[in-house]
Amino acid sequence: MPFYHHVLPNGLQILGETSPSARSVALGFFVRTGSRDETPEVAGVTHFLEHMVFKGTPRRSALDVNRDFDNIGAHYNAFTSEENTVFYAAILPEYLPAAVDILADILRPSLRQEDFDMEKNVIIEEIGMYEDQPMWSAYDAAKRRYFADHPLGNTILGTPDSIRRLTRDQMEAYFRRRYVGPGIIVAAAGNFDWPHLVALVEEKCGQWEAGNVGREQVRDTQGSGECEIVKREKVNQEHLFLISPAPGAESPLRHAADILALALGDDSGSRLYWALVDPGLADSADTSFHDYQGTGSFYTSFSCEPGRTQKDLDIVLKVLRDVQKNGITQEELQQAKSKTGSRVVRGSERPMGRMQAIGMSWTYLHQYRTVDDELQAFEAVTLKTIRELLDRYPLDRVSSLALGPVEALTLPGSRAATVRERS
Amino acid sequence: MPFYHHVLPNGLQILGETSPSARSVALGFFVRTGSRDETPEVAGVTHFLEHMVFKGTPRRSALDVNRDFDNIGAHYNAFTSEENTVFYAAILPEYLPAAVDILADILRPSLRQEDFDMEKNVIIEEIGMYEDQPMWSAYDAAKRRYFADHPLGNTILGTPDSIRRLTRDQMEAYFRRRYVGPGIIVAAAGNFDWPHLVALVEEKCGQWEAGNVGREQVRDTQGSGECEIVKREKVNQEHLFLISPAPGAESPLRHAADILALALGDDSGSRLYWALVDPGLADSADTSFHDYQGTGSFYTSFSCEPGRTQKDLDIVLKVLRDVQKNGITQEELQQAKSKTGSRVVRGSERPMGRMQAIGMSWTYLHQYRTVDDELQAFEAVTLKTIRELLDRYPLDRVSSLALGPVEALTLPGSRAATVRERS
Repeated sequence: MPFYHHVLPNGLQILGETSPSARSVALGFFVRTGSRDETPEVAGVTHFLEHMVFKGTPRRSALDVNRDFDNIGAHYNAFTSEENTVFYAAILPEYLPAAVDILADILRPSLRQEDFDMEKNVIIEEIGMYEDQPMWSAYDAAKRRYFADHPLGNTILGTPDSIRRLTRDQMEAYFRRRYVGPGIIVAAAGNFDWPHLVALVEEKCGQWEAGNVGREQVRDTQGSGECEIVKREKVNQEHLFLISPAPGAESPLRHAADILALALGDDSGSRLYWALVDPGLADSADTSFHDYQGTGSFYTSFSCEPGRTQKDLDIVLKVLRDVQKNGITQEELQQAKSKTGSRVVRGSERPMGRMQAIGMSWTYLHQYRTVDDELQAFEAVTLKTIRELLDRYPLDRVSSLALGPVEALTLPGSRAATVRERS
Repeated sequence: MPFYHHVLPNGLQILGETSPSARSVALGFFVRTGSRDETPEVAGVTHFLEHMVFKGTPRRSALDVNRDFDNIGAHYNAFTSEENTVFYAAILPEYLPAAVDILADILRPSLRQEDFDMEKNVIIEEIGMYEDQPMWSAYDAAKRRYFADHPLGNTILGTPDSIRRLTRDQMEAYFRRRYVGPGIIVAAAGNFDWPHLVALVEEKCGQWEAGNVGREQVRDTQGSGECEIVKREKVNQEHLFLISPAPGAESPLRHAADILALALGDDSGSRLYWALVDPGLADSADTSFHDYQGTGSFYTSFSCEPGRTQKDLDIVLKVLRDVQKNGITQEELQQAKSKTGSRVVRGSERPMGRMQAIGMSWTYLHQYRTVDDELQAFEAVTLKTIRELLDRYPLDRVSSLALGPVEALTLPGSRAATVRERS
């Protein structure tokens, strides 16, 4: 499948992978800005801004945005992470010009005071909804604890307080600084004509500001090594997170890290699955690998009956220490490779999957990677690579957090457990 | 994309659509049996049996089933509906023989007494989990109310009582009657060799029993027209379902029904969306079209603050009556067509989507339908077709059910509201 790349004079990059056998196109605008790029005064502004992008422009009311997407039958949405804000749509090929027109237009939002004030309540409600999900709360708090003063610990949604204090002018200043040409990649995959896409994007985005856009504190971290107990009596189950260091998105060890996470804590057929879930000792148990610019981490989590927490935690630590010491088996390596192979291939079968893959690969590596490149990188992982990974990123160097009704718990971590009470 | 069909001497059918550009294969075993095929004594047996299929065979323990699927990196699962039990896996092409071997093997399960007794608790817990979801509870109760003595009103999961009373022998008798050659379709889509697939399936399934398999009471219904209030104080929001008649899966009006449901109650940009969700009067509002063998129905639902229920209900009824009287607009028709076009195409881009489509089309219509056949059928719908649909299936002939804290409500329906109290 042919790949194309073009840079506009203002620094905006356009990527495309065409596939004549596809019957749709996926189009994404990747803005390289996320919660790690926020100062404490504007915590949550990136995610709030993502919402405001759908609230209208000089040419379109919020209602028009919705209706225009619906009229072309677009499957569209957006998401905000620690490092990226991505807006995307999947459409039939004949609607590509309309989709570029809508997405490019909404990326220059009006940010009207009235909409801003209304949307504040929506964001605060959304924060409340997430806070009601104990697993998510535990994840967010554990991430903050692990990253400590590293900006990757910033919460994506912000807090009700930070959102209440945020002004429209602060958001506009953030927007002007971050939504500039050099910080934006437009990626398309599927059935489309490349010169036509370039012409469309050039017409709609060619006049966007250039400006300087950067990212501060891109540094590795091994985590704080701290532990914390957050007591919440209203929660029925106890939720635990153990976070340990891992390679970053640019590291050649990232494929090995994916494989290790699967062998350790995939939701079926992994060490933790057999140790905790299959025998019914825990409701869930999972390890996942998150890679960021400059650093990464393994998130191991489980939830269980409060009375079982210490026993389950000891089992998890035993598993982590065993893998740290002895690695995984050849059979586990092979099974994890089958899983990654299947995921890479299935993920690539839709234009949406390829669009996301080429956009992310360009964002982090400035590289085009084919499906075969990815398959080969996973295939090349050996038990020796896994050993090298474990030596550089010790699985048992964990920061930990427990959230739920349990008050006393011996958590791993270099500092004594602190207990915060939360209703 | 070439399509193939083959029938084994025992009546089992094999379907295949090959796509050389695909890099994976999706394989499904469609068993034509569901909750509508159950007698009251064995309510829930179909879904319980679906679980037991994963509990092992003479050749494999439950652990082996899990491990064998994991070893080939399969993305696998199963589901049970009113009319079908479907087991499926997506794999890389080289694992097709292994996938046929595992799926064919588990479809002849041991049904061991010990596993049966253990799994009973899992099923009863699952029923409890669903009962905790008010929208699902309301849906299930409304369906029962609408279908009254029609077997499509049978609950898929059964009740804790019916599951407790069920014996292993009853399940085995049901299995022997329903899981026979003529009731099973094996469908594959993606990158595979057709003669090889036929040989594999013939080897593994050729000796399966033939037997007679049928379905009773395949008849149309316009619904009971009854209404019911289920009071549940613990639930915060009120949940309503209005069900009206619709065409069945074999009806040439089914595409018009899909379009009408989208125009009326898609989750974005529909009549109900603009009337209730956009102005913040309801948390959600939705119309969906379900087609079954011999009949169909429109499910219109919403949830809201209890105090708003009557007002919101009146708005919904006004919308339904307006559409019944005046139909939809040309613009709404066009928007719904864009949405169905986009859905059909995106749904077809993965082997998994095509496998499900060809399996279901053969199950209901004994027909192979291409993506273009479906696109053309949607494209052919006119305002006149919508009028014909409305005349034959009146939208305002509703059966209704409300679940939540509200006690008094004027519900539409030919009989007085009955109030059941539930904790």
